[in-house]
Amino acid sequence: MTAVTAAILVIGDEILSGRTQDANVQAIARALGPIGIAVREVRVVPDDQPAIVAAINALRAAHRYLFATGGIGPTHDDITADAVAAAFGVEIGERADALAILQARYEDAELTPARRRMARIPDGASLIANPVSGAPGFQLGNVFVMAGVPSIMRGMLPDVLPRLEGGAPVLSVSVRGPGLREGDFAAALGELAAASPELDFGSYPWFGPDGFGAALVARGTDREAVVRAGDALEALARSFGAVPEREGP
Amino acid sequence: MTAVTAAILVIGDEILSGRTQDANVQAIARALGPIGIAVREVRVVPDDQPAIVAAINALRAAHRYLFATGGIGPTHDDITADAVAAAFGVEIGERADALAILQARYEDAELTPARRRMARIPDGASLIANPVSGAPGFQLGNVFVMAGVPSIMRGMLPDVLPRLEGGAPVLSVSVRGPGLREGDFAAALGELAAASPELDFGSYPWFGPDGFGAALVARGTDREAVVRAGDALEALARSFGAVPEREGP
Repeated sequence: MTAVTAAILVIGDEILSGRTQDANVQAIARALGPIGIAVREVRVVPDDQPAIVAAINALRAAHRYLFATGGIGPTHDDITADAVAAAFGVEIGERADALAILQARYEDAELTPARRRMARIPDGASLIANPVSGAPGFQLGNVFVMAGVPSIMRGMLPDVLPRLEGGAPVLSVSVRGPGLREGDFAAALGELAAASPELDFGSYPWFGPDGFGAALVARGTDREAVVRAGDALEALARSFGAVPEREGP
Repeated sequence: MTAVTAAILVIGDEILSGRTQDANVQAIARALGPIGIAVREVRVVPDDQPAIVAAINALRAAHRYLFATGGIGPTHDDITADAVAAAFGVEIGERADALAILQARYEDAELTPARRRMARIPDGASLIANPVSGAPGFQLGNVFVMAGVPSIMRGMLPDVLPRLEGGAPVLSVSVRGPGLREGDFAAALGELAAASPELDFGSYPWFGPDGFGAALVARGTDREAVVRAGDALEALARSFGAVPEREGP
């Protein structure tokens, strides 16, 4: 559907233990879609250097871009910068430009050795601005390393997105059909999908206290084809008795 | 920390595009922790057979258990059962016991070819009961295949958990410290972590409209060690001026 693909690597024990619900995958994916970059793989790994290194090297080789989140804070389990350096086989040390950012934010007495660790950046990387909490992320090759705290990660995106070369933007149309059941319309939807191989079709059922239904979705880079698919999905929903609610072109 | 490890494979374009927020990883991880099974890796892949097969084979070899969610419904993009059969190199066909479950749920006229597809189960698999919507999941070897819709997935867990052999349960203690800043206490926390290598220590900052702080967490299988760590984390939080809020042993 698009030639520009990306992967996301989420680093952190707290996601794997279930303590914390990841929110960065969705935020990154939604930022990339409109500029024509499709996330094709996500991995979540613990705060463990061999696991991080293996994932970084697998994903940066397989995709045009890799976005990593987590593990760049001041505590002992923040080991992402070292792992990225190890993955690339480069040195890592305190960088003057990163230290200057921290010095501008913290009084001397507050600039503890732990905070100063956040100025350690792999050789050859460029910094990613962090307007929320100061300590920068960094880009090394096609790998973008950002914070794990969602509000800080989102604050870094404006410095990341202009660096990316996307493909044709992916458009999507969604037709919600209250009362629709996948088993009823699956054959008709499969026929639509087979007739428009340039698009991806999906259906996403919901079940809740207020009833059930399914959202029919078509995605692709050809605007006219997406609009036609939306019309066809609306007709499909009506033919199975639903009053469709359309979003998108 | 525990010898019994697991991986989770989330299958679905809708997670990668950002359309849908995954909720299954957290639910599965939280169900496994108390029975001594630690999730060590998560992957999310699209509705694409080669990608699913590669991930299944990598993860089932690397971990004691693999839990897969998504792609077992009736539509054209529900290809997980076929991908699992391909990964294991076994045949797949309509199974009488799975069909009987669907026949008990649907009138003959409703049992469309699309719905009947949900009775296709890889050879050698045992079924996983689905009390929510009928169509079963299945277990093949150390791989458990469940629905992607969170309410249905959670409904399948009671038939999955008794089949698992866990290790020592992982206990965790969490000490919330409003006003704490990681850069202040990082060195002290690192010393605690170094002094108790049998535990995993982490800290998770928050930033919100009502202020900021950090939660200090220790996890491990030795109850007494976790209790001692909780005491130490409370003392640490107080020494940096916070009034700690403790959860756990």
